[in-house]
Amino acid sequence: MTTPAPSQVATRMAREVAEQPAAARRTLDHLLPQRERLRSLGAGRRRVLMVARGSSDNAAIYGRYLLEVAAGVPAGLAAPSVATHYGAHLDLSDTLVVSVSQSGATAEIVETQQWARRCGAATVAVTNVAGSALAAEADVALVTQAGPELAVPATKTYLTQVLALAVLADALGADLGDALARVPDAVASLLDSDVTDAARALASADEVVVSGRGLLLGTALETALKLEETCLRPVRGYSYADLRHGPISVVTGGVLAVLVAAADGPLAQPMEELADDLRARGARILGIGGTTAFAGRCDVHLAGPDLPEVVAPIASIVPAQLTIERLARDLGLDPDNPRGLAKVTRTDAP
Amino acid sequence: MTTPAPSQVATRMAREVAEQPAAARRTLDHLLPQRERLRSLGAGRRRVLMVARGSSDNAAIYGRYLLEVAAGVPAGLAAPSVATHYGAHLDLSDTLVVSVSQSGATAEIVETQQWARRCGAATVAVTNVAGSALAAEADVALVTQAGPELAVPATKTYLTQVLALAVLADALGADLGDALARVPDAVASLLDSDVTDAARALASADEVVVSGRGLLLGTALETALKLEETCLRPVRGYSYADLRHGPISVVTGGVLAVLVAAADGPLAQPMEELADDLRARGARILGIGGTTAFAGRCDVHLAGPDLPEVVAPIASIVPAQLTIERLARDLGLDPDNPRGLAKVTRTDAP
Repeated sequence: MTTPAPSQVATRMAREVAEQPAAARRTLDHLLPQRERLRSLGAGRRRVLMVARGSSDNAAIYGRYLLEVAAGVPAGLAAPSVATHYGAHLDLSDTLVVSVSQSGATAEIVETQQWARRCGAATVAVTNVAGSALAAEADVALVTQAGPELAVPATKTYLTQVLALAVLADALGADLGDALARVPDAVASLLDSDVTDAARALASADEVVVSGRGLLLGTALETALKLEETCLRPVRGYSYADLRHGPISVVTGGVLAVLVAAADGPLAQPMEELADDLRARGARILGIGGTTAFAGRCDVHLAGPDLPEVVAPIASIVPAQLTIERLARDLGLDPDNPRGLAKVTRTDAP
Repeated sequence: MTTPAPSQVATRMAREVAEQPAAARRTLDHLLPQRERLRSLGAGRRRVLMVARGSSDNAAIYGRYLLEVAAGVPAGLAAPSVATHYGAHLDLSDTLVVSVSQSGATAEIVETQQWARRCGAATVAVTNVAGSALAAEADVALVTQAGPELAVPATKTYLTQVLALAVLADALGADLGDALARVPDAVASLLDSDVTDAARALASADEVVVSGRGLLLGTALETALKLEETCLRPVRGYSYADLRHGPISVVTGGVLAVLVAAADGPLAQPMEELADDLRARGARILGIGGTTAFAGRCDVHLAGPDLPEVVAPIASIVPAQLTIERLARDLGLDPDNPRGLAKVTRTDAP
């Protein structure tokens, strides 16, 4: 039996990245009709609390900003150990708790959802597995239609989670109009991005930092996490503000800064200024998305989606996914099975 | 005029670290009598939202856990750009917003507090400057009594912020009993920690990660931030769970893991297990605090405070401060004026 060379067959990760337009279409078709149920469930609840870890946590960060910015609903991220280890009793009778887990089987997330119900919360599960414990026990299950994901790095399950959270925000008051319907085509149009130079810039960097802000912060953190997990390189992900608040002092020559930006919105111009500052400190810039002026400040630039800022983060991860898959192969790694990662993550030892 | 060699005079940072027992006593004396006003202000408010950046954000993370775990009050961290850039309108009439800023002058934090008032929140400012905008505009100002802090790295202002948040939690229902009163002596007893080996271990590491969990998470993140800002070394700070959820795969030989733990509480044993796991991957362990069994797993260990977990984080930062001050000098850096940092941080360009 011969094993084909990596260049001869697409990796599973590459195939799953390419399936995303279809996965997004199926997910929209499946979830948009559930908005009425979500509206009913959310009626009388004053805020949303997200429960997630890892890539799902990065999706939840987008969900949090979108709910606050576009739906006017106070939102935040739960600290699962408050439930699982401290067993705190909080009054969550005014709260809609949204638990996000690709497998729906991560014990910590399932336990935290059970705790939230005991605390009086209404619950929504966002998961890719219809029969999972998380889905079965939630008041409403938003089951993403990514199909089975075989590569360890979450790609189509992440993108459809982010999409599900946008559907939730739309149901709870964000008027996303026809922007959601434009997402699948926007994802498709990014699939033929030429990531050769981006992968090369990452391969030659001494150190990598990733930053974004506001609605795009989750995308930046997901880019950092995927880069670290898939390419086994230490990468630091920072919010724009946290980066400026101190760690920017360690940015010097040899650093590659990956900046993820939107083409519109109140943070588009601050991201241009961040690029200027980082360049002045000697960093090279790999930019994804942003304004034309932002693109002009980048040493290497990948186009972002043609979507407004409120939904851009659903698609903005695509150029990063392509770059990371390519970089892993360039480094002689198998993007489908990075060392030391299991598909269902256990936070605690058994 | 001759400049004395660094070894001949204590740095400002070292002096300010040593002032902390007195600063803690003054702060307790000043703030404990304000608990009744805090209780009145919090009456009818269902949750607490913290507003902070940088070191203050790390203090706020402790405050969030303490409020949920010990006072049963749902708490979370605000995303300031939701206020300052997106100008979202949220109904915060059920919310107590706690803004934390050493200077009380960080524009982003002051603006976010003003936004919170417009959204109907009751407001508490935690700051070291009595006449600051943040203090003047809050319903209740908790002014920490650290005195002027001249070294750029926040030490006594951070410790007294954390203490102020514990006073707030006590007022809102956490029964901290006499534990608060024991803090100043516990801080004092840590000041003569021998940090020689700890600084040496950090100096010789190829890479440093810092981790902690639950009530101690803020201490771990503050340790990472201070190490990065003061010693100009890239350091990654992770929650225990986030570390396990992926980035642990890049931990190999050459990594020094700094683990901050409590001697009691539900996370004491998981921290022992984390130390085992990291050692099995080839990392060396610098431990601060924790159980006796935890200490036995560390290559280098610094004692933590003799305090219960709920208030241990007020003092657990002290061994880290001493180590960082020493490391900076060992590296030939000036701990009082690390490159590229200003005392009042501006998040956005003017």
